[in-house]
Amino acid sequence: MNIPTIRPVSVDEIETWDFEADVVVAGFGIAGVSAAIGAAESGADVLVLERTGGGGGAAALSGGIVYLGGGTRLQKACGFDDSPENMKIFLAEALGPGVDESKLDEYCRGSVAHFEWLEACGVSYKESFWSQPGWECPADDSLMYSGGENAAPFNALVEPAPRGHLARVPMPRTGEQGAGHVLMTTLIAKASTLGVRVETDVRVQQLVTDGSGRVVGMVATQFGKTVAVRARGGVVLATGSFAYNDEMMQTYAPRLYKRPAATVEEHDGRSILMAQALGASLAHMEATEVAFFCDPQLIARGILVNGRGQRYVPEDTYPGRIGQLTMYQNDNQAYLIIDEEAYEEGIAAPSSSPQLRHAPTWVCETVAELEAEMGLPEGALTSTVDLYNRHAGKGEDPVLGKKSEWVKPIGSPIAAIDLRGMTGGFTLGGLRTTVDSEVLHVDGTPIPGLYAAGRCTSGLSAWGYCSGISLGDGSFFGRRAGTRAAGS
Amino acid sequence: MNIPTIRPVSVDEIETWDFEADVVVAGFGIAGVSAAIGAAESGADVLVLERTGGGGGAAALSGGIVYLGGGTRLQKACGFDDSPENMKIFLAEALGPGVDESKLDEYCRGSVAHFEWLEACGVSYKESFWSQPGWECPADDSLMYSGGENAAPFNALVEPAPRGHLARVPMPRTGEQGAGHVLMTTLIAKASTLGVRVETDVRVQQLVTDGSGRVVGMVATQFGKTVAVRARGGVVLATGSFAYNDEMMQTYAPRLYKRPAATVEEHDGRSILMAQALGASLAHMEATEVAFFCDPQLIARGILVNGRGQRYVPEDTYPGRIGQLTMYQNDNQAYLIIDEEAYEEGIAAPSSSPQLRHAPTWVCETVAELEAEMGLPEGALTSTVDLYNRHAGKGEDPVLGKKSEWVKPIGSPIAAIDLRGMTGGFTLGGLRTTVDSEVLHVDGTPIPGLYAAGRCTSGLSAWGYCSGISLGDGSFFGRRAGTRAAGS
Repeated sequence: MNIPTIRPVSVDEIETWDFEADVVVAGFGIAGVSAAIGAAESGADVLVLERTGGGGGAAALSGGIVYLGGGTRLQKACGFDDSPENMKIFLAEALGPGVDESKLDEYCRGSVAHFEWLEACGVSYKESFWSQPGWECPADDSLMYSGGENAAPFNALVEPAPRGHLARVPMPRTGEQGAGHVLMTTLIAKASTLGVRVETDVRVQQLVTDGSGRVVGMVATQFGKTVAVRARGGVVLATGSFAYNDEMMQTYAPRLYKRPAATVEEHDGRSILMAQALGASLAHMEATEVAFFCDPQLIARGILVNGRGQRYVPEDTYPGRIGQLTMYQNDNQAYLIIDEEAYEEGIAAPSSSPQLRHAPTWVCETVAELEAEMGLPEGALTSTVDLYNRHAGKGEDPVLGKKSEWVKPIGSPIAAIDLRGMTGGFTLGGLRTTVDSEVLHVDGTPIPGLYAAGRCTSGLSAWGYCSGISLGDGSFFGRRAGTRAAGS
Repeated sequence: MNIPTIRPVSVDEIETWDFEADVVVAGFGIAGVSAAIGAAESGADVLVLERTGGGGGAAALSGGIVYLGGGTRLQKACGFDDSPENMKIFLAEALGPGVDESKLDEYCRGSVAHFEWLEACGVSYKESFWSQPGWECPADDSLMYSGGENAAPFNALVEPAPRGHLARVPMPRTGEQGAGHVLMTTLIAKASTLGVRVETDVRVQQLVTDGSGRVVGMVATQFGKTVAVRARGGVVLATGSFAYNDEMMQTYAPRLYKRPAATVEEHDGRSILMAQALGASLAHMEATEVAFFCDPQLIARGILVNGRGQRYVPEDTYPGRIGQLTMYQNDNQAYLIIDEEAYEEGIAAPSSSPQLRHAPTWVCETVAELEAEMGLPEGALTSTVDLYNRHAGKGEDPVLGKKSEWVKPIGSPIAAIDLRGMTGGFTLGGLRTTVDSEVLHVDGTPIPGLYAAGRCTSGLSAWGYCSGISLGDGSFFGRRAGTRAAGS
């Protein structure tokens, strides 16, 4: 295969421009469509280059949660108080260590307005709240907890508020149509009404620079033909993560290598490399989202133990946090210990992920038998269950702080579900950008003409994650990229 | 302060060269001196640019362990069998995940010859083995375990062999003179006999490139004056880590931000940025060494528990592994639980770090009293000690695999030493280089004329660490950088 170089090409080498626009956006996922709308709303002539045959990207396949707060209309309608300050306190802790304070600050202060912008773009919300544990919402409610705000340790830090905002979906659902699909369809339609042009089956290959180092276009391939695309105002990179770039994964996120989830194969990291070739700076390349493949309705009703039989996370928290702590802090070893009554109750509960309701791996009458079956050292699991039950009788969990509503002594028969290696995810690191989505050179100054947003950048997450952050910062900083590239 | 740009300068802008050499080496620590010797031995005219008033760098202040194996003369003299294969199996596990297989392979296969080269450079070794737990060796023995090779889980993976090689030091010691100082003094003397020139008080600022993109020199400041240095063959970057660059630390290693240890303030990451401005690729920027500030002679004799009162590491392993697991996997929370008899025995044992023998924070008659004093939930520590003692009576530790010689039931009186936050360290990530120390562009090809080694590169460690790896890969790949830059 002849892979073109990722080094920039000089504008002097371009003989003719095949396409031209004020703002050229690479990628038509959440960040790209938001950039396109933002630029078009600022009066720019916009061209989107999309690698596949249509728009949507990973966002259209996702659960569609957008992380917003600070007192959105929807939060208020559902009876929740929130403030930008509380939102920031929570996110700084949940997404760290190492969050970009200035980005987080802008995001929290601008969140209510961003929600209004999404509504103005045509995204509709139902004024109802989903209160159950879950990766996503199985009903058509539009608000949910999506980051463990109401679980330990965060619920002791700041007043919890749900911030997962979901586009209204038609009920009864048909097929797999979810909030992500609805969100993207709506935004793509909005872009279309604004006159945004889209070229599909276009693979971006190189940035074009002028003598001063300014980015003035891109070289791409379309149906096997090389095309040159001129950007009179600016280029916006919005091509997603590097979850499918083997070398980058081995270099930056080796624990997630060959374990992609909630990502698409187009996420090959090329935009990151193209910008690096211009001296672009990176941030938090090792940060990843980590999904945990077990139904949260089961997890909350049992106790999770690691390979030594020890608990390590409050089981009622955001399952992505469980995934991160399992993979990075517990060698990807996890077992769910749950008694029959709790298991039956979990199975009967409404869920967005019934396919993650694993059958018990081992079932025994006593914990001692179970730990022997599991191959754990004598007493390892018994001591854990005894300690849990000692406090659970009073509805308390002083060791990890699981909320009282989920705390019940574990009885008999007792099962263990083998969840070792039940993780996967996508990358969160990428290009270092300003709050206006300018790509930063390693000398700390913006690279003229170059903008980026979404998962090819390092956004709000520095290590931790909440569901809705990718669609949140992708749309928020994507819109800013478009607005800025349009010269506003 | 007027900080010059880190962007490259064109050779056309250089009016006169203040210095010239075949090979110009930036930095005179372990990687720099090895590069200088390697280049000079290959017949090159070599100039070293050192930022401080003299050579040595962090290496001269270090414990001086060089990680070598595969059957060195010293290993054999001390009665240990080793092979490159066993060395590689261990290191791939201990330094991962994500190790550079090709580098590791070269290093293990070349390790015996590298030891011989160090001896030929004048470094002397005493044929005796230090068998006690310790960060370093308090006697004048020259061989020791320095990576937990003989502890769980690694001792079950492959036959253990000690690979920490220490230069012979004069006894009785005078002052702080250690193996690192002796090593560096010897190598600097060797460089001098080979005619290597050294300019001190020189701060490198920019790389100089020609029209083809080849690195042909550097611009630096010396006593406030800007100087241009021509490199006819190549430039070797060997300026150390980025542990003292605030912005890079917040971006790449936020947990270690403001917690430097075993590093020097000159480690400002500038070489990494200068190369990035040419499109250089990075690797494993988040990897760090983590020291744990407690005497290993105490740690091995107690049990370490996290903030929940749970054990998490075999206490007889390499203390740097304890540091990493404490900081990254247990929220920097650690307590050493130890009974009076074991504490007294540990205090009486020989140690290289008597200043890390902390006094007990709490002392009680029973574990129940102790856990209450410590503020742990009722039963949290009791269940841990009960489980440990249940097996310790038989000299076993099935939960974490501490070796029998260190396993004894914990009696009364019992103490806890508060070790929360007792960590610090240095960074291990940096420029991506080939096995010949060529700096790689993000397009996968070497940047002509540019070489790098030591802690400004990503070397053998991808996440884990062993003592001696920095001096090991710094000298090994430093020498290769010099040889290669000299055109050999």
